[in-house]
Amino acid sequence: MKKQYAVIGLGRFGSHLARALYEEENEVIGIDIREDKVEDLQNDLSQAFIADSTDEDSMKSLGLRNFDVVIVAIGDDMEASILTVVLLKELGVPYIVAKALSKRHGLVLTKIGADQVVFPERDMGLRLAQNLMHPNIIDQLRLSDDYSIEEIKVPSDLVGQTIQALDIRAKYQLNVIAIRHTDEEVSIAPGPDYSIKNGDLLVIIGKNKDLNELSQKLKE
Amino acid sequence: MKKQYAVIGLGRFGSHLARALYEEENEVIGIDIREDKVEDLQNDLSQAFIADSTDEDSMKSLGLRNFDVVIVAIGDDMEASILTVVLLKELGVPYIVAKALSKRHGLVLTKIGADQVVFPERDMGLRLAQNLMHPNIIDQLRLSDDYSIEEIKVPSDLVGQTIQALDIRAKYQLNVIAIRHTDEEVSIAPGPDYSIKNGDLLVIIGKNKDLNELSQKLKE
Amino acid sequence: MKKQYAVIGLGRFGSHLARALYEEENEVIGIDIREDKVEDLQNDLSQAFIADSTDEDSMKSLGLRNFDVVIVAIGDDMEASILTVVLLKELGVPYIVAKALSKRHGLVLTKIGADQVVFPERDMGLRLAQNLMHPNIIDQLRLSDDYSIEEIKVPSDLVGQTIQALDIRAKYQLNVIAIRHTDEEVSIAPGPDYSIKNGDLLVIIGKNKDLNELSQKLKE
Amino acid sequence: MKKQYAVIGLGRFGSHLARALYEEENEVIGIDIREDKVEDLQNDLSQAFIADSTDEDSMKSLGLRNFDVVIVAIGDDMEASILTVVLLKELGVPYIVAKALSKRHGLVLTKIGADQVVFPERDMGLRLAQNLMHPNIIDQLRLSDDYSIEEIKVPSDLVGQTIQALDIRAKYQLNVIAIRHTDEEVSIAPGPDYSIKNGDLLVIIGKNKDLNELSQKLKE
Amino acid sequence: MKKQYAVIGLGRFGSHLARALYEEENEVIGIDIREDKVEDLQNDLSQAFIADSTDEDSMKSLGLRNFDVVIVAIGDDMEASILTVVLLKELGVPYIVAKALSKRHGLVLTKIGADQVVFPERDMGLRLAQNLMHPNIIDQLRLSDDYSIEEIKVPSDLVGQTIQALDIRAKYQLNVIAIRHTDEEVSIAPGPDYSIKNGDLLVIIGKNKDLNELSQKLKE
Amino acid sequence: MKKQYAVIGLGRFGSHLARALYEEENEVIGIDIREDKVEDLQNDLSQAFIADSTDEDSMKSLGLRNFDVVIVAIGDDMEASILTVVLLKELGVPYIVAKALSKRHGLVLTKIGADQVVFPERDMGLRLAQNLMHPNIIDQLRLSDDYSIEEIKVPSDLVGQTIQALDIRAKYQLNVIAIRHTDEEVSIAPGPDYSIKNGDLLVIIGKNKDLNELSQKLKE
Amino acid sequence: MKKQYAVIGLGRFGSHLARALYEEENEVIGIDIREDKVEDLQNDLSQAFIADSTDEDSMKSLGLRNFDVVIVAIGDDMEASILTVVLLKELGVPYIVAKALSKRHGLVLTKIGADQVVFPERDMGLRLAQNLMHPNIIDQLRLSDDYSIEEIKVPSDLVGQTIQALDIRAKYQLNVIAIRHTDEEVSIAPGPDYSIKNGDLLVIIGKNKDLNELSQKLKE
Amino acid sequence: MKKQYAVIGLGRFGSHLARALYEEENEVIGIDIREDKVEDLQNDLSQAFIADSTDEDSMKSLGLRNFDVVIVAIGDDMEASILTVVLLKELGVPYIVAKALSKRHGLVLTKIGADQVVFPERDMGLRLAQNLMHPNIIDQLRLSDDYSIEEIKVPSDLVGQTIQALDIRAKYQLNVIAIRHTDEEVSIAPGPDYSIKNGDLLVIIGKNKDLNELSQKLKE
Repeated sequence: MKKQYAVIGLGRFGSHLARALYEEENEVIGIDIREDKVEDLQNDLSQAFIADSTDEDSMKSLGLRNFDVVIVAIGDDMEASILTVVLLKELGVPYIVAKALSKRHGLVLTKIGADQVVFPERDMGLRLAQNLMHPNIIDQLRLSDDYSIEEIKVPSDLVGQTIQALDIRAKYQLNVIAIRHTDEEVSIAPGPDYSIKNGDLLVIIGKNKDLNELSQKLKE
Repeated sequence: MKKQYAVIGLGRFGSHLARALYEEENEVIGIDIREDKVEDLQNDLSQAFIADSTDEDSMKSLGLRNFDVVIVAIGDDMEASILTVVLLKELGVPYIVAKALSKRHGLVLTKIGADQVVFPERDMGLRLAQNLMHPNIIDQLRLSDDYSIEEIKVPSDLVGQTIQALDIRAKYQLNVIAIRHTDEEVSIAPGPDYSIKNGDLLVIIGKNKDLNELSQKLKE
Repeated sequence: MKKQYAVIGLGRFGSHLARALYEEENEVIGIDIREDKVEDLQNDLSQAFIADSTDEDSMKSLGLRNFDVVIVAIGDDMEASILTVVLLKELGVPYIVAKALSKRHGLVLTKIGADQVVFPERDMGLRLAQNLMHPNIIDQLRLSDDYSIEEIKVPSDLVGQTIQALDIRAKYQLNVIAIRHTDEEVSIAPGPDYSIKNGDLLVIIGKNKDLNELSQKLKE
Repeated sequence: MKKQYAVIGLGRFGSHLARALYEEENEVIGIDIREDKVEDLQNDLSQAFIADSTDEDSMKSLGLRNFDVVIVAIGDDMEASILTVVLLKELGVPYIVAKALSKRHGLVLTKIGADQVVFPERDMGLRLAQNLMHPNIIDQLRLSDDYSIEEIKVPSDLVGQTIQALDIRAKYQLNVIAIRHTDEEVSIAPGPDYSIKNGDLLVIIGKNKDLNELSQKLKE
Repeated sequence: MKKQYAVIGLGRFGSHLARALYEEENEVIGIDIREDKVEDLQNDLSQAFIADSTDEDSMKSLGLRNFDVVIVAIGDDMEASILTVVLLKELGVPYIVAKALSKRHGLVLTKIGADQVVFPERDMGLRLAQNLMHPNIIDQLRLSDDYSIEEIKVPSDLVGQTIQALDIRAKYQLNVIAIRHTDEEVSIAPGPDYSIKNGDLLVIIGKNKDLNELSQKLKE
Repeated sequence: MKKQYAVIGLGRFGSHLARALYEEENEVIGIDIREDKVEDLQNDLSQAFIADSTDEDSMKSLGLRNFDVVIVAIGDDMEASILTVVLLKELGVPYIVAKALSKRHGLVLTKIGADQVVFPERDMGLRLAQNLMHPNIIDQLRLSDDYSIEEIKVPSDLVGQTIQALDIRAKYQLNVIAIRHTDEEVSIAPGPDYSIKNGDLLVIIGKNKDLNELSQKLKE
Repeated sequence: MKKQYAVIGLGRFGSHLARALYEEENEVIGIDIREDKVEDLQNDLSQAFIADSTDEDSMKSLGLRNFDVVIVAIGDDMEASILTVVLLKELGVPYIVAKALSKRHGLVLTKIGADQVVFPERDMGLRLAQNLMHPNIIDQLRLSDDYSIEEIKVPSDLVGQTIQALDIRAKYQLNVIAIRHTDEEVSIAPGPDYSIKNGDLLVIIGKNKDLNELSQKLKE
Repeated sequence: MKKQYAVIGLGRFGSHLARALYEEENEVIGIDIREDKVEDLQNDLSQAFIADSTDEDSMKSLGLRNFDVVIVAIGDDMEASILTVVLLKELGVPYIVAKALSKRHGLVLTKIGADQVVFPERDMGLRLAQNLMHPNIIDQLRLSDDYSIEEIKVPSDLVGQTIQALDIRAKYQLNVIAIRHTDEEVSIAPGPDYSIKNGDLLVIIGKNKDLNELSQKLKE
């Protein structure tokens, strides 16, 4: 069964969030204090309202306590963000997610009752840093502080070799768990005699330090 | 060998990006037109400069053409963002990454020569939407439009069961490629008779639709 | 032994507070982000500093953790007020008093760790209301929800009567515990045959409802 | 019979004042130049009006000369405060109370005819200073420059002693006129053999210097 | 002996006033809060100071109490005008002249102690109105509500006539007390046989109603 | 017959001018770009309009070319003042009076066709300077560069003396042409044996240097 | 057949452009975000609209893709200019002309698809410079880097001479192709014996260096 | 001999003008009230000054009366433009050129003494309109209201024909005075048997109506 979400603050972050929730057929309302932001999303959500989220009467009249999750995605106004979360808490909203602008803001949000605090700009900054430092690692899933799964580009001079020949398991203690081909197809658990094709991405699991060593090697 | 990065625009996104690059021992300079932003990062980067990135003389004097990558992370001033990219291009910067505020802004950045365009607020919005809709999927690596790897929480009533008993491969055409335990350890390629412990996350590869079905099932 | 106080925010409320503490020979420093406010108090306190109270380095350098009490008397900037209290808490200030602008602001301040929250404008509003509604009650000390001590003006036509003749104890269940004369002298526990003089204020203890009845009676 | 009040300026001070007067069933109108302030109080007063209090026609049409008391609680605009008082005086308002922002402002208000001038921020600053310097004095009623009544907390190590044993009258020339218990009850004129309970507050009358000595003693 | 003047507020009105006083060899200082105003007059007065006239220390340091007259010619800031006058009064300035922006402002200035209140814009408005309505009355000196002296242009068709022939005294009860000629010379108490020349102005004394009648007649 | 005036710019100067013209039963319209200025005068003039005086269509529609005199009394906006005069000239207004803010502004107004240029603040500044320097000269009518008529206060120690005794004509070459009494009555051409009363003002004609000498003498 | 034009941005440049196109009986619509600009042109174009040219819905609803030419004449807002051109391109406008504020802005406009970029202020600056430096060259048509046609004033001392006598062809390798007379008439291909009249302008074709030499000669 | 120019107002128009004059080796100074504008041109002119052009002292100190031409290219501040021209006139500048923002502004500039008034935005608007309406007319030189010289593109289907065959002189009463080739060369006075090449532009002289007819014809 689909859920009910309210997104408060319809800036770039909030509006993409709200749209994505709505596209999966959830019921989503958007709330912003600025008319132009609300108008832009009028047709992309269940409903969009111009309202001051720090005003008790307005928030009550929207029945926010009946929503499964309310996300406070207010852009730069820390005061409004804090007062909104306090108010939502008083109204009995079951699950409150709030966007923090700084570590200290995040701390306040947690103390006054936000159930989940997110730091989108910080997270994206870190992510892009990873991506720039390891351009042949297309994507990555951190399993723990020590283990990850990574998609690694294969340099063109290895095309035609077999996985066995790369000797990944013996030399780096890593497992190739899948291969993604340029046609978007994926071969799960490829055999040792699979011969690498142009554009193949190796999906490899193992310890970070071993993965780093391999990715470094493959760059050369 | 480490690389040289310049980050232009030291807001929340840019400053986290710059710090992360610097912590990995790259040479990183930060540039912002506002004095307070530059002061905040003075001690966290190789160097930080107050400068107008649309001013040719200032940018030339910083020798930006010798950097490996210049990231234009300017916050809300689309004009400055565009003029900066044009100028960097003229100066011969080898690789320019630019943050776009909207799809159309992204299009302009591409046409005038940005090598990579990122949309952090959009991406984080989509990411949080996924996370809210699938709270038992802790993290996810999309391999293609059809395939993903996901970390899925196991409901407490399945603790003690074996992987075999879950019958994941037969019923969902999915492979359990690893298990992450609460102590941050990871068991790669667990055997069929592994008995699930409290707090275990299953790392599973397969088609998206099959993964959705499984994650839906495990929620109940 | 005298104490050490720091007052952050030197508006009308904060500056009077700081001066009063200093006049009793305490060590008092004043902090404000505006230069003119700080200059005005330069010679009236132990020391006065221009500083941003949300800036960790500035606050650390002032050694605020060694003060007995820090009072956050920031005027209208709720965000600064909240961030300052969080920061003071992190720095380990032993006792934090904070001025709230609204009930909800007060709630946030309490949750993030303020030891005492004050509402000066609200309190003064209530006080003036009492004073306007009961002009013959010169001052009042509320002992509990039911009991008070009040200073009540005696109408001129009762001058010359004895306390006994007023029959306050029997008719109103109230005790006259003192009488304040126009020459600022006070007679404690006056006898029943004390004869009321022009300008006398009766200091009476008892239940609020009885006091109201009496004050109403004496007005006529 | 209840009275008619008008409160001009509905900031934090004015709005609390107006509400308190209205809750005691007086007729109270509120006046402010800002629409939002007026809307906030619409349902809490007899009536609330958006009006410029320096405009003769507006003030005339509200019939302010028929009110018993008009309070000018204008926040920060000294010019508006002064012109409003002059205008009210011309209109024949019988009793004008005005809030002053500074000593000099208070002087002007008196000279142009305000019947009562109040300094809420100054008074609250002084009050909090007292409270911080004497934390065991819960509340206080100043009778004259020399005499006061104070509520004093009893330290826990005196619990179980009798009032006589404390020897307050002999050692400090002070009278215990009442005791407030933790259950909000009050014992008036307690006997000398009353045995002090946990949480009792002594209500004591006497000279300030004796009270100070006692309160200092009881802190140790 | 020459006098000492201080002019506070160096706008158009104040600067012309100050310059005129200085040109008659008085000692004149000018004071304004704006640097540009002060610079403009630097060389035209004894001295010119940048200072806030509501700041007690600044005013004291200028020794204003020793000036014969202080003129408060502050342009549009009524609050500053009022506070300045109160302050000058406290400092013991012997004679304070203040410019009022409105009737009510003038009333306040008088009540707080201004010795003379002027309304330059009002006065000039009235003056121009007179001039426009009676273009043949070149200038006028009002002696009382009923009497004036006026300079009246003589229409060219009366040139060559004698004063006697005009029959002013008999028909209008007016006295011709002087005649001003085009060469700037003045004939005092002209004889009845004076023959009017081209461009002569008659200086006439009498009742206003008679003067009006005459001036009306001479227009035709 | 009465005339038609239009006053553009309803500040302090313009509004007093317009009212004075209207009170003499002329037809007067007022024009200002600010709604509040126009509303204030709505009932005090024939008509008042909100309009931009630099907009050709608006001005045409008011039929300004049919007015006898249009006065441009625009306060501080020199550009609007100049464009308005140019436009009025193009529309064929017969007589344009314009208020100048500075000598150079006055020069521009004359060159582009203003028939009369006035400098109210300058004139009032000069006037007050005269008045302050010669406080016993109550009022003055300058007849030419050399001659004036002045009202001079008589010091109280001369009360009771005759005019003859003052010897004004012989010693100063001056004529006493009238005497104004405290009851507002005026005696024209008083005889030499008129005995001076308390509060009398002498109205004297003569050369400026002689008048100065006398007024100096009478001050002592 | 006439064409359809849309002009976006109705400042001084855009409005003159739009009017000129409309006067030649083309269909011209004007678009500006400011109401006053649109109102000023309401009656001078086919239609004028208040609209934000960066808003896709607004631009679509105006059917801009059906216009022959859209001119983006936006004044100072570079961001709006760029986003508008991108949008127009997406909408399929066949021919886009855009005004550039700087060389770099022009470069961006070209890269994102503007078909023609104009620099009006630069061009006019250059034009006036030519005109000031060569005041006897009334106008000029540059044919190539080397060749021009120029209108050159003839100094009065040559009046009466024949073209032959000037010896222009032999001495300067230039051809007189026409003569413009003061009565606006033009003689094409004048014969060698044409005798120069007062005010004649010679229209001459040839190399720039020869023309410069001649114009220099004729100045003397 | 080269000349001395001063350009006041260094916006887009003024700075291009100043640079063009300087590149021809004239002495050129630039003046602007904004520091950034002056800095941008510091190295491109003889000298550049930050100064307020309405301030007499500043302008005098620059010795503007000794310049041959002063150009007032002030952007949007009509008041500054007018006051500057008046001041330059008073200083005795021999030739003043001023940029007008509107027809009425131009009129004022002329009346107060500008020797030449230019309307760059209007002129460029008209020019672009011509160019858009007649895209095959590459450039044009208006000789009078009736006559012009135009450069006209020849449609590709006429390539190879002779000029005689086009029959321009007979059919349109026009003369081909030159032909500009794609290699930037120009053939002056081409013979009738010249055979048209690809990309040739015909330079034609004649009456406007005949030229229009021809250009219309050649478009088809």
